[in-house]
This record gives sequence, structure tokens and C-alpha cells, in this order.
Amino acid sequence: MKKAVVLLSGGLDSATVVAIAKKDYELYAISFSYGQRHEIELNFAKKIASFAKVKEHKIIYIDLRVFGNSALTDNEIDVPKNRDDIEDSKEVPITYVPARNTIFLSYALAYAEVIDAHDIFLGVNVVDYSGYPDCRIEFINAFEKMSNLATATGNNYKIHAPLINMSKKEIIKVGLDLGVDYSIAHSCYDPIINNEKTYACGKCDSCFLRLKGFKENNLFDPYPYLN
Amino acid sequence: MKKAVVLLSGGLDSATVVAIAKKDYELYAISFSYGQRHEIELNFAKKIASFAKVKEHKIIYIDLRVFGNSALTDNEIDVPKNRDDIEDSKEVPITYVPARNTIFLSYALAYAEVIDAHDIFLGVNVVDYSGYPDCRIEFINAFEKMSNLATATGNNYKIHAPLINMSKKEIIKVGLDLGVDYSIAHSCYDPIINNEKTYACGKCDSCFLRLKGFKENNLFDPYPYLN
Repeated sequence: MKKAVVLLSGGLDSATVVAIAKKDYELYAISFSYGQRHEIELNFAKKIASFAKVKEHKIIYIDLRVFGNSALTDNEIDVPKNRDDIEDSKEVPITYVPARNTIFLSYALAYAEVIDAHDIFLGVNVVDYSGYPDCRIEFINAFEKMSNLATATGNNYKIHAPLINMSKKEIIKVGLDLGVDYSIAHSCYDPIINNEKTYACGKCDSCFLRLKGFKENNLFDPYPYLN
Repeated sequence: MKKAVVLLSGGLDSATVVAIAKKDYELYAISFSYGQRHEIELNFAKKIASFAKVKEHKIIYIDLRVFGNSALTDNEIDVPKNRDDIEDSKEVPITYVPARNTIFLSYALAYAEVIDAHDIFLGVNVVDYSGYPDCRIEFINAFEKMSNLATATGNNYKIHAPLINMSKKEIIKVGLDLGVDYSIAHSCYDPIINNEKTYACGKCDSCFLRLKGFKENNLFDPYPYLN
């Protein structure tokens, strides 16, 4: 079975991508501790990696707080709440982390080169690209082209973004058909911990899109919410 | 004066690039502690940054040892010595670090985006590309194209590699004309510390190319060598 590297954030999208890639590849997952507000999602990444029986799971410690400038890496900037117009917004949200996907994919490329894998999966999609520039197919294609020039083993790297044209509704449908357990996939930008249990806020952009996706499938989200 | 981010390793090439970029830009230097065998070059990076009066110098701590597979990040792999045919070699040297320049440039891009700079300088050149894939102009151009799709502020990033077509002889000539102090630029892959002073080995690929460059200029290298 061919090897693939999968970017695993611990969220709904990457949990779905893991299930999709697992059909055809032996999986090497990579997650990042990048100075985000909460390390909670890494615990969920570990749960998903274990559930999917990946061959190896690397966790990379990097510090994007050194640059700041995002609500996800700078404590001085608040996470936006109660926005129901995010899908129509043309602005880059303050939760955008400068060059984040470029940095993550660069590490994935190093990992792939070392283990002799040529396929890299990540869970970007057009809904997340309510302004995130590094979720566009043009970016993915440009990164793939660059990868084939960057490496000693170049020329046949493929960056797979299987969710890129799917709505959250479709992603959830595909994931459930593949047996994904969404109760161990964490999406919230601003979670609350109560009695050692993690709850989603239900109000940030990420919660909004996820709840809408489940609702459109006429399903309840198995993840615990505070309200 | 426009801002530019400069990748500063502490070596001869990046010291020269700093001097070139300084003519037209206010400089923001970025260096990496990436699990290399020695942290010595970071001390030289600090000296060069100070000498060139850069506006800011960020040092990023990342761990490429998590992947290994290079003589520069894996203690189990020896640094090659006494090779006088490296300029003719078609093989990728074992000192190649998988996807290193891709990772470094990704951080530089994040830095540039945050400070609103659109120019990034780095010191790759064709002689170093005695097999290093991520020193080729095709790679630099592909990274630049990707940068303009990766970022919220996209569309006018420029990756400058002013040394790319220069020989080591030419680089040294240009640097000396700009007043670079090469006694604080460290190149050796395998330095020796004796009585708290750092000496270059004079035998690794990097020393070989540097010594040859000074000799071709009929000059002595001001850096201390052990032999």
C-alpha cells in the first residue's frame, strides 16, 4: 500500500480527509502545536489518529506567536462571535494565521520526502475559504508545483485536497458514510472546559459552519456544546 | 524606505545578501535554530545582524531533527570531508536537509506578511546547488508564485536571490566592495571549538568552496581555520 502524509488538525475536515485517504494509502499523520490559543485540538488529533490506526503520528512544535497578528495566535485579538454572514464575506477573517497552510505543507513535504511518500492530503475547502487565501485550489496547485522543484526526490508530488469543492453538508455526509466519529473531531475556535470536559462555544465562525452542516443533513452534531 | 525580510544563516552568502539588500531596504532578519549539529552559526547570525544594523532580528526555534535524514540534522550521519569534486557532482549531498529552504521561506513569508513587507531575500546560489534542489532559480520562482496565492496581502511578493548566478569568487568580491566583514561570517559544517574560539575545519564541502573563492580573489579568508 502506498504511503501518504495527512495534515491532521483534529477538526471535522481533517477527520474526514483521514477517512478518505485511508481507503487507498498507509497514513502518516502530522499535527502542529503552533502557539494556538488552546492545545485542545491536538488531543482530538491524537484520538482521530488512533481511531484511524495511522502508521505514525508526528506532532511538530512551532511558534507562530512570534509573528502574532491573528485571533488564533494572539491573545490580544478576540475570536469573532455570532457572525451569520461569514459565507458571504469578502474579507479575510481575523482568524487567518499568516502563511499558516504554507508552513504546515512545508513540514508535510519534508516528512513525505523522508519517508518516501509522494502524496499529501489536507482538508481545505471552499467554505473555509470565506476569505482564507491559503485554502484556494490555485494555492494548492502552486504549492504542488513548487514541491516538485523543492525536493531531491521531486517531480511526482501530489497535494490532495479532496474536500475543496464540498460544502460542510457534503463533507459530513461523506465522512459519516466512511464511518468517521465526529464526537472526537473538534472544530471550535474558542472552546470551554468544564469539569475536565471540552465544550464547543456554538458561536464562533467554525461552530456556525459545522452546526449548519449537520442541520442541513437533518442530523444532530454528536460533539458537546455549551448552549 | 521599503521593508525587506532577509534569511540570515550566519554564513558567507547570507552576510553578502544582507549587504546587498541594505542598499535599498530596511531589513528584518530571520534565522533558524533547526536542530542543526551546532548552534554556532546563530551566534554569527547575531553578529552579522548587529554589524548591519538590521531593524529587527527574529530567531525561530524549529526542530527538523524530528525528520532527520541529513548530515546536518542527524548525529548518526557524518559530514563528508575532503571532497574536491563537489562542483561536478550530480548527486544530492547528504548535507541536504529535506525541504529546508521551503520551510525557511514559509516562515519568512509569514514574517513579511505580518510586517507588511513584500520583498524576501535569500542567499542561494548555483555553486551551492551542487545538487541542492531548493537552491535552483526554478524553485525560487515557483515559491514566489505560490506566495502570491498563499497570503491575504498577496499578488506582489518578490523572492530575491541576488547571488543565484554568482560564483563564490564573485560573491566574495561583491561583499568586500560593500564592506562585509567575513571574519564574522561562519560557513563550516563541522567547526571545532578550542579555548572558546570557533575554528572552521577547512575540509568540509562548505569550507572547500569558501577557501577556493578567497584564493581565486588572491585574498586570505579572515576566518580562523584549524589547519
